[in-house]
Amino acid sequence: MAKFLDMHRGMAGITGDQLKRAHSADVEIQDEEGVTFEHAWADPEEGVIYCLSEAPTADAVLRIHERAGHPADEIHHVPLSI
Amino acid sequence: MAKFLDMHRGMAGITGDQLKRAHSADVEIQDEEGVTFEHAWADPEEGVIYCLSEAPTADAVLRIHERAGHPADEIHHVPLSI
Repeated sequence: MAKFLDMHRGMAGITGDQLKRAHSADVEIQDEEGVTFEHAWADPEEGVIYCLSEAPTADAVLRIHERAGHPADEIHHVPLSI
Repeated sequence: MAKFLDMHRGMAGITGDQLKRAHSADVEIQDEEGVTFEHAWADPEEGVIYCLSEAPTADAVLRIHERAGHPADEIHHVPLSI
């Protein structure tokens, strides 16, 4: 398993409730790809969301986001962390 | 206080030790601006680093990173999180 940080753009105006619903949509199907979404952070003003996950591959994360209706714009494998 | 996520590019090849030293350089002077650096994640292959912090303003975070020798390329106020 590896750690990934992905980013979604174009989410300006997102509310706390919408973020929770989007996260729940991911969590609901994450087991099908062996992904665990751990955290999400949103900047509603500039419309950016970051998600931290553990997953077997970046593609597994991207597939879950895609199927949940919010494809990611960028993803990074982050093997180093503090 | 508010939560911020910033990003540094151009850090390809960074090692775990270098990440720790860079983080320590921030932590050493963070109190001068009321900033607390909580986490950092690095993708050494694509040279991207993300830092999560609590701070009074984005500028306070940027000033610490700048003075510590590694200015950030992007920063987002992330008031929403899961």
